[in-house]
Amino acid sequence: MPIQSFLPPHRILMGPGPSDVSPQVLQALSRPIVGHLDPLFIGMMDEVKQLLKYAFQTENDFTIAVSAPGSAGMEACFVNLIEPGDKVIVCRNGVFGDRMRENVIRAGAEAIMVDDEWGSPVTPSKVKEAFEAHPDVKILAFVHAETSTGALSDAQALSRIAIDNNALTIVDAVTSLGGVPLKVDEWQLDAVYSGSQKCLSCVPGLSPVTFSSKAIEKIQSRKTPIQSWFLDQSLVLGYWSGEGKRSYHHTAPVNSLYALHESLLMLKQEGLANAWERHAEMHQKLKQGLEKLGFEFVVEEQSRLPQLNAVYIPEGVDDAKVRTTLLEEYNLEIGAGLGALAGKAWRIGLMGYAARNENVSLCLRALEETLQQ
Amino acid sequence: MPIQSFLPPHRILMGPGPSDVSPQVLQALSRPIVGHLDPLFIGMMDEVKQLLKYAFQTENDFTIAVSAPGSAGMEACFVNLIEPGDKVIVCRNGVFGDRMRENVIRAGAEAIMVDDEWGSPVTPSKVKEAFEAHPDVKILAFVHAETSTGALSDAQALSRIAIDNNALTIVDAVTSLGGVPLKVDEWQLDAVYSGSQKCLSCVPGLSPVTFSSKAIEKIQSRKTPIQSWFLDQSLVLGYWSGEGKRSYHHTAPVNSLYALHESLLMLKQEGLANAWERHAEMHQKLKQGLEKLGFEFVVEEQSRLPQLNAVYIPEGVDDAKVRTTLLEEYNLEIGAGLGALAGKAWRIGLMGYAARNENVSLCLRALEETLQQ
Repeated sequence: MPIQSFLPPHRILMGPGPSDVSPQVLQALSRPIVGHLDPLFIGMMDEVKQLLKYAFQTENDFTIAVSAPGSAGMEACFVNLIEPGDKVIVCRNGVFGDRMRENVIRAGAEAIMVDDEWGSPVTPSKVKEAFEAHPDVKILAFVHAETSTGALSDAQALSRIAIDNNALTIVDAVTSLGGVPLKVDEWQLDAVYSGSQKCLSCVPGLSPVTFSSKAIEKIQSRKTPIQSWFLDQSLVLGYWSGEGKRSYHHTAPVNSLYALHESLLMLKQEGLANAWERHAEMHQKLKQGLEKLGFEFVVEEQSRLPQLNAVYIPEGVDDAKVRTTLLEEYNLEIGAGLGALAGKAWRIGLMGYAARNENVSLCLRALEETLQQ
Repeated sequence: MPIQSFLPPHRILMGPGPSDVSPQVLQALSRPIVGHLDPLFIGMMDEVKQLLKYAFQTENDFTIAVSAPGSAGMEACFVNLIEPGDKVIVCRNGVFGDRMRENVIRAGAEAIMVDDEWGSPVTPSKVKEAFEAHPDVKILAFVHAETSTGALSDAQALSRIAIDNNALTIVDAVTSLGGVPLKVDEWQLDAVYSGSQKCLSCVPGLSPVTFSSKAIEKIQSRKTPIQSWFLDQSLVLGYWSGEGKRSYHHTAPVNSLYALHESLLMLKQEGLANAWERHAEMHQKLKQGLEKLGFEFVVEEQSRLPQLNAVYIPEGVDDAKVRTTLLEEYNLEIGAGLGALAGKAWRIGLMGYAARNENVSLCLRALEETLQQ
């Protein structure tokens, strides 16, 4: 049969992302395309910057969306701030800490690993010890909200340690932005990246990033060129700069940026604190329901992310079969375990537009029915 | 005033890209999102691969869309195929040859430049001479269709020279794919990248690429790691592979891929040869009209791209003012000159869905009216 237009069903996305996208954002996505150098579009990009500053709680001038997924936002932070031979402390308590390590090594730098158990937050005292053992470290990299386990680390405490040791911070906020407090300026974080498809509930493909003035100084005082042309933020800055002439770097993903603009506007209209509260409330309801069904959480209560609930798969339950039933019979997606938790845990996301009362109720009921089969 | 939803006007995009996107593709873009590991989505990705093979005229297994704009597709080709210390011949006859050089240098390799005038195609005899002077060159890189000038180079002849010298080819087909004949297998090209937003008339943000088996062998026999994690095609392959288990690499831009699927399907339904013919016909009509208005083309007739018409700005005409009038009073975008042609030429695109009779008529009439003002 010849290939036909792809007509997807209406899924409910409660995995680790992408999350549900609201009809309002999908509508924005499909508005007529304009040129990427059109003055109207440039005006919209300036608004995206303003809205991102609000979401990140920062006044950083360099606050933009990288024209690629979160993995590219991660790489943008590492290749711009790291020079070959630099030492970087990398905290690893899940899949994404390990990916940070890959980035450090491929940029020709040395990664000093600080390991914590999967499901635990990063232990600040271990980071302190690593700095004591390696006083010439220039950067501390850690994941704020580990998407592979659902653990939240204390970004403010970790940042304080880096500052005390004259190091910059690179922070993975892919899953935290919009879902739990993230205060870039108050916590003095230096390079922070996120993804459009988690608690912002935009389509995947964009990576919001923000760089502090200290991070920009570091980039401007590099002795070696940035190894990536596409991710060279000194060039990208000329493209996103609102001042007068805009220099062409690459073609922005115009329609995806319409969607990001709309999703950030929805966040602004709801209010960040209200969004955090909504995620927390929905988590409480989900948690109580899951515990009644006998589930155990991977992460201790005090470090648990409301927007990503990792629970152990009950003994004797067929992982893939349950997820397939939920998908095929309820149009409900929950996430499989990743890395060390593959086959052992499920990840139930309550991200952005997905963190709604009706979703939690459906998820609990569908799990109950499916596990009884 | 608080920020509002962005409601763009309906522009007609006849610049160097992004090009007009059909309502059918915009509709596909805004279909409900599904998970990026959903079996239905994986099936759609397999169809995108099949459709891309048709567009590229190749049987290469490794034919996918990089989850980022054409600049990233370019970088993916260079950082995967080049190792530090390699020698690469780079043909430069416009902006994008120079960008290739940047990529070569940042990958730690040596770029041997073969220069031609802006507006001229690459001269094969110069490439031959470069190989004679540097017999240890491993890669020949050139732009098939220079978006900055509108010049078409003879990819088949250049590929033959590379083969005779045991070198692989990296080919920029950003503007050529779908607009003029491009025959990856017949011409034995090795690594070819394109963009979604030119003659495919999809939204910007994706970069179709195809790698020959020789290119894959080169990647697999590397002695050094690929410097980019995000663009490491040996990892991406595991994500796009249709065989059984799909390994997570990054989150695919789900909705943009819906749009690419639809735009490739439209190309398949029209037929490649018919699409090439349509671009050629619209170019003839535009050319005759422009010549009547007294315009001169930058590129000689035999090397002229039908889909990108660079013409000199007539003496005494205010470049920016005319383009602003076209945009504001006709909702018509034509392109400014780029690089050496900035302020000297306009670039009128007839790409994909924009290559329609009504667009050509409007463009000619609007130019005539505006120049008479």
